[in-house]
Amino acid sequence: MAKATSAPGPSVGTDVGVVDLRQGLGQVPPPAAVLAEGARRFGELGHSYSPAEGLPVFRAAVADKLQRHSNLSVDPATGVVTTVGATGALIAALMATLNTADGVLLFEPFDDRHRTALETLDLRPEPVRLTAPRFEITAESLRAAVTGRTRAIILSTPGNPSGRRYTEAELRIVSAIADEHDLVVISDEAFADIAFGAAAHVAPATVGGLGNRTLTISALSPTFSLPGWRLGYVCGPEPLIGPVKVAADALVGCAPTPLQEIGAKVLTVGEEYYNELRGCYAAKRRLLIDGFRAAGLAPNEPEGSWFLLVDCSRWGAASGAEAAEFLLRGSGIATVPGETFYLNPPEHPYVRASFALPDEVLADAVDRLARLS
Amino acid sequence: MAKATSAPGPSVGTDVGVVDLRQGLGQVPPPAAVLAEGARRFGELGHSYSPAEGLPVFRAAVADKLQRHSNLSVDPATGVVTTVGATGALIAALMATLNTADGVLLFEPFDDRHRTALETLDLRPEPVRLTAPRFEITAESLRAAVTGRTRAIILSTPGNPSGRRYTEAELRIVSAIADEHDLVVISDEAFADIAFGAAAHVAPATVGGLGNRTLTISALSPTFSLPGWRLGYVCGPEPLIGPVKVAADALVGCAPTPLQEIGAKVLTVGEEYYNELRGCYAAKRRLLIDGFRAAGLAPNEPEGSWFLLVDCSRWGAASGAEAAEFLLRGSGIATVPGETFYLNPPEHPYVRASFALPDEVLADAVDRLARLS
Repeated sequence: MAKATSAPGPSVGTDVGVVDLRQGLGQVPPPAAVLAEGARRFGELGHSYSPAEGLPVFRAAVADKLQRHSNLSVDPATGVVTTVGATGALIAALMATLNTADGVLLFEPFDDRHRTALETLDLRPEPVRLTAPRFEITAESLRAAVTGRTRAIILSTPGNPSGRRYTEAELRIVSAIADEHDLVVISDEAFADIAFGAAAHVAPATVGGLGNRTLTISALSPTFSLPGWRLGYVCGPEPLIGPVKVAADALVGCAPTPLQEIGAKVLTVGEEYYNELRGCYAAKRRLLIDGFRAAGLAPNEPEGSWFLLVDCSRWGAASGAEAAEFLLRGSGIATVPGETFYLNPPEHPYVRASFALPDEVLADAVDRLARLS
Repeated sequence: MAKATSAPGPSVGTDVGVVDLRQGLGQVPPPAAVLAEGARRFGELGHSYSPAEGLPVFRAAVADKLQRHSNLSVDPATGVVTTVGATGALIAALMATLNTADGVLLFEPFDDRHRTALETLDLRPEPVRLTAPRFEITAESLRAAVTGRTRAIILSTPGNPSGRRYTEAELRIVSAIADEHDLVVISDEAFADIAFGAAAHVAPATVGGLGNRTLTISALSPTFSLPGWRLGYVCGPEPLIGPVKVAADALVGCAPTPLQEIGAKVLTVGEEYYNELRGCYAAKRRLLIDGFRAAGLAPNEPEGSWFLLVDCSRWGAASGAEAAEFLLRGSGIATVPGETFYLNPPEHPYVRASFALPDEVLADAVDRLARLS
């Protein structure tokens, strides 16, 4: 239980010479009118406990947003549990549905926070390789990864750091194999609003039989640049969601009440906010993709999220760690080695770089990359 | 891991006929000037992540308060981790210091939330009886309860529902036995400010060798009537506190940032607030004690916390559950059966009743008790 690991990545000094692309932070300001309303009403907001599952007004706003953007019908009265961010959502979902030493399938490359959560709870990560460069789910690799201890699958769509938004066809594979082995599916959709291209977001819970076995988790952080509010949620069917509420209650009591009240308003902002959001990140994404290409490297073209996964094979690096070291020493650009997102060695020497950064930081990175080539 | 249990106590309808004394809620309004300042500054507060251990300004305010009120010196830079309430503090402290199936000594009667936390994390509660009516710690009972699996002691001072504030002599016993068996001590002091009588609060970490092996936990909720803010903290020495920070990071990321900023201000309010607080609860405590006495029952005289433990032997009840049932049916007063706070049957048929309720609710309860006698 003392196995929690701290954030990965190379140690980077704070000297001005380093451009840090390791993590992203929301670059679109939260809706100003809602913050102003929050300020105006702060004194009269509820400062007592909310129900363990969250305020009704917050759960209603979550259900409404999921219907609008994910075509997902959730009962706000019984199907939503409000949590302390996406981190709290994942921990509560895992505690509620699994027992110590259970196996959990993780698609590689995975979000390293998912692995940390599993290790924190003494659960056993079981890797399923998504094959480069498309990072597709195949029935063969998924079926081959199931063991006698497997009880659940974690996936994220859009994926961090694969950038994948899974298709309905891929999710039907997940549905079939989850049915075969009676697996719970935990779907992290925190990046659902940060998506590129014409395809709509496909929520796993809307595909095949997954609605009956999926816990959908998300948070306000990436879309609304409000990570400090620590507001996330888990949605799902009975009997999965009942134990999530019990776990959330036992772990944290409830999510911060006054912020739930304002957060409910944030969730109702109109489509113009989302259009601005996608436009902002699409431009930043293009800037950084072009920068890495100019240096002769091969970044992916992510369908969603705010991360690039950059294949550094061209340099002849033996590993992502070596490539990240070369980038840091050669040009002062800090990235995360691809090995962070894999249990077994990746096919290529990858580094992950975020484009959720101010334009001047990205421009600095692009300049340095140009001088590298 | 799916063992989390929901809140105990009888099921009580919402009909107007019931006076619910099962739980308390802060009755002294939060400092109005601080809330007003929070409202004024809401738009400019930090809405991004704080460090996992919390904002420096919040940790400094915690260290300052502990020095002022508990005579406890804590390094705000390295010795404080900000958490999601006292619940999050206890969970992080337990996860950081213990492994599955470790034994944890719990003084009976214990705070049922402590038992829930242990069961949530697959830890093993090991009871140590505090002998009625004084509920004192004795070396004999504590030493006799230690097993080969014991790794920690949880205590709360003031105790819920014992109402005890342990003396330095009792805490020296804890110190000696913790030294003998190399135990971690987790001290829940959330009720430290709600204390009656002339004796000062004695923080266990200031006694004997306990400073080297104690994690002190508390929260803003009871003192400032701000449970919805979900702000708590864990303090302690290296190497105990480092893993608490890692666990808090893995479980929730961080505590809500904008509320940490305002919470730091709340923690600096002057002594007049604390005087008002003690005066308010002292009057409510007296009201409810006298009410139970008028009904021929024997409530304790708690030294702290906002709960009474009422011995209902006089009625010939076989158990606390039977006494609670009698109170509910006979007069519509809902209380918590004493068995909730014990692993083994208590010496007497107890019920727990809170006096942290509006005066009109307490007056109604007192009227009903008078008619019972």
